[in-house]
Amino acid sequence: MPFQTPRGTRDIEPEEMIRYEYVLSVIKKVFEKYGFDPFDTPAFEDWALLSAKQGGGEEIKQEIYYFKDKSDRELGLRFDLTVPLCRFVAANPDIPKPFRRYQIGKVWRYDKPGALRWREFLQADIDIVGSESTEAEAEYLLAICEIFSELGFRDFVIRINNRKITEDFVKALGIKNVIDVFRSIDKLEKIGAKAVEKELTEKGISSASIKRILEFVQLKDIDKVKKQISSEGINEIEKILAFLADYKKNLQVDMSLVRGLEYYTGPVFEIATGAGISVGGGGRYDNLIEIFGGKKTPATGISIGIDRLVAVMSEKKMFPAIKTATKVFVVSVSEAVKKNVVDIVKNLRNLSIPAEFDLMGRSLSKQLSYVNSREIPFVLVIGEKELASGKAKMRDMTSGKETDVWLDKLEDVKEIVASKDQANQARGNA
Amino acid sequence: MPFQTPRGTRDIEPEEMIRYEYVLSVIKKVFEKYGFDPFDTPAFEDWALLSAKQGGGEEIKQEIYYFKDKSDRELGLRFDLTVPLCRFVAANPDIPKPFRRYQIGKVWRYDKPGALRWREFLQADIDIVGSESTEAEAEYLLAICEIFSELGFRDFVIRINNRKITEDFVKALGIKNVIDVFRSIDKLEKIGAKAVEKELTEKGISSASIKRILEFVQLKDIDKVKKQISSEGINEIEKILAFLADYKKNLQVDMSLVRGLEYYTGPVFEIATGAGISVGGGGRYDNLIEIFGGKKTPATGISIGIDRLVAVMSEKKMFPAIKTATKVFVVSVSEAVKKNVVDIVKNLRNLSIPAEFDLMGRSLSKQLSYVNSREIPFVLVIGEKELASGKAKMRDMTSGKETDVWLDKLEDVKEIVASKDQANQARGNA
Repeated sequence: MPFQTPRGTRDIEPEEMIRYEYVLSVIKKVFEKYGFDPFDTPAFEDWALLSAKQGGGEEIKQEIYYFKDKSDRELGLRFDLTVPLCRFVAANPDIPKPFRRYQIGKVWRYDKPGALRWREFLQADIDIVGSESTEAEAEYLLAICEIFSELGFRDFVIRINNRKITEDFVKALGIKNVIDVFRSIDKLEKIGAKAVEKELTEKGISSASIKRILEFVQLKDIDKVKKQISSEGINEIEKILAFLADYKKNLQVDMSLVRGLEYYTGPVFEIATGAGISVGGGGRYDNLIEIFGGKKTPATGISIGIDRLVAVMSEKKMFPAIKTATKVFVVSVSEAVKKNVVDIVKNLRNLSIPAEFDLMGRSLSKQLSYVNSREIPFVLVIGEKELASGKAKMRDMTSGKETDVWLDKLEDVKEIVASKDQANQARGNA
Repeated sequence: MPFQTPRGTRDIEPEEMIRYEYVLSVIKKVFEKYGFDPFDTPAFEDWALLSAKQGGGEEIKQEIYYFKDKSDRELGLRFDLTVPLCRFVAANPDIPKPFRRYQIGKVWRYDKPGALRWREFLQADIDIVGSESTEAEAEYLLAICEIFSELGFRDFVIRINNRKITEDFVKALGIKNVIDVFRSIDKLEKIGAKAVEKELTEKGISSASIKRILEFVQLKDIDKVKKQISSEGINEIEKILAFLADYKKNLQVDMSLVRGLEYYTGPVFEIATGAGISVGGGGRYDNLIEIFGGKKTPATGISIGIDRLVAVMSEKKMFPAIKTATKVFVVSVSEAVKKNVVDIVKNLRNLSIPAEFDLMGRSLSKQLSYVNSREIPFVLVIGEKELASGKAKMRDMTSGKETDVWLDKLEDVKEIVASKDQANQARGNA
């Protein structure tokens, strides 16, 4: 029996990978426009780093791939891109601040696989290290809004909260172990209010306090929050909202948002598509670099889950119907014209047109079957007659439309290809 | 003490990562132009797959990162991108052939770290699955030649051999265990002729045969090879050389090249820079898909080692001197103009100019220090006076040259930036 991919992982075939490449190209372009530089870190890290309290915390520890190298060093696959960034900043205290980096890379969690949930997934992160200002959050949220707009989302929502508000509220109720409450609130959507109530009761919180907490986390209006509690966190949210006035309709204050990871200390965010599917999130983590042995350094950032994003966009038919990067297959009518076919392919490539020819010694009809199975959009059919006349038929394989092109003027091929690409792109964005 | 990256791995800081991004963009563009589609596979695979005889073989097994997941499944980090490809093809026998894919991804080997040798490294592979024709090799070698030319290498060398020739020669000497001989020949450059002679003696090969083998592997001329042995492999090499006539000076037949991995069955290649540093290689592996449980399927491909390539290009000063993707930092003379500065940055970004502003509440001089430390190429200085006149000074931070720009005509900024980029690029390629 053939081997399979390990549980919770998968191959990404060309049709889907072309979508990944498109999404990543938009993300990189916007990240760089907003002043973020590319950066990379190893796939695995010291186990001590990954399992550090307040790094991933106890919960993450259950979800890390752990291993030893052949010298018995304890290692683990990274579960996010934030911990490696903080490790880097801690070890390099003199890098200019703010350090604005983006990082696109795979992370691994030993989670229960399911719909939109994998054990290996690709993240695109932007972070700003060194700035205490909420302008830092505003900067990267603007970049996120631009990305989602450019990808064609009209109705994405960035949910916003601030852990300081929740913390101030919970402390005002006389509860000391705030992180315990955060953990339960974080499960609200997943397990429901009843189960959260039960958990909080088991954690020793009074039913009166639980009632107030569960009411409070329903709030989605900053003015109503203000009436319940006074907190520096409210002020920070208001500054962020003011900065992002252009995207007012895409922002949603939401007191139920706390995010699971222990390391957040201030504003927290979650990016959701119109259908409510989370495709990213982040927030401020001002203590993490110090915990990893660095100088106390404020830091904040956000992460996009690329696999989910591509899956959602595929589901919503937001991509053009492209199965291959190849644009033109040059068909040889006979083996005798093969050398000329190779030259034509070379000339097309010199014009930056992705092109191929037959490598299988196939008949004309079998070459066309191959083109159809790959969904290559165009063929150019070359036989003795075409070589003699210097003119060949270019066929659009979707519409069946044929256009004569001169073999010494292949720029026309480029135009035909470009015009179909544009039509396709427009359909994808419709 | 701060945490470090695990032994044999490293962080890639922005200045270097910008170089990676540039190299990868050239590679992707050429791969797609040559009709290869993107593809991806998980970072880890079943241990049984990775450790299969003829996959990595015994030698590779010592170099794999091995681990178990929490359900005791045996896994390992992939050591190349060829084995995962073959696993995919074996499990998906009906994908259209030839399957032409490229894959860019990290691989891991528990090798002794050293100069240009890491335990985690990035590979860019192209492979053609399903074609027996040497046109397949010619196709991807053409793509490789175009990539190295476009990156600015004048003197790269692709060394070419064919395992069939070596095999026919060794068998003609009456030696049965050909793979043992391959393994020793593969070490020739590393350990020298004396040590190889010793190894072969220990393997029970007669001194007369060893002498003939060591003479044969010195051959670098296909006509001289022909005089020693008749082999289908010679014919295949000649076809490849004919196809690649445009790059004649970059091709070098070399009978000492066999490549370590057991799975090669025909032509093998190694890409070297002018200084002789290997930056990639590959060849034909017609049996591997069948070994992994698939139908017998011919396959061939080549891999570029990106880390080495970037290191060599850095050493040879082939990159423009760019430390950040950011082009313009808009300096605020006072906090009072901050809102306008933010608007100017927004307008620059709308023109696709990567731009930043101060997030630290810094003074004018400290903002300029930051710009210098990041080596951001331009600043635009904004104060009350500039806002009143609608005109600001744009300073080239390298030359010190200042140009007046109108704040309602920021297209001029784009031109100034583009013109410096061009000059920089030209310097990088010089």
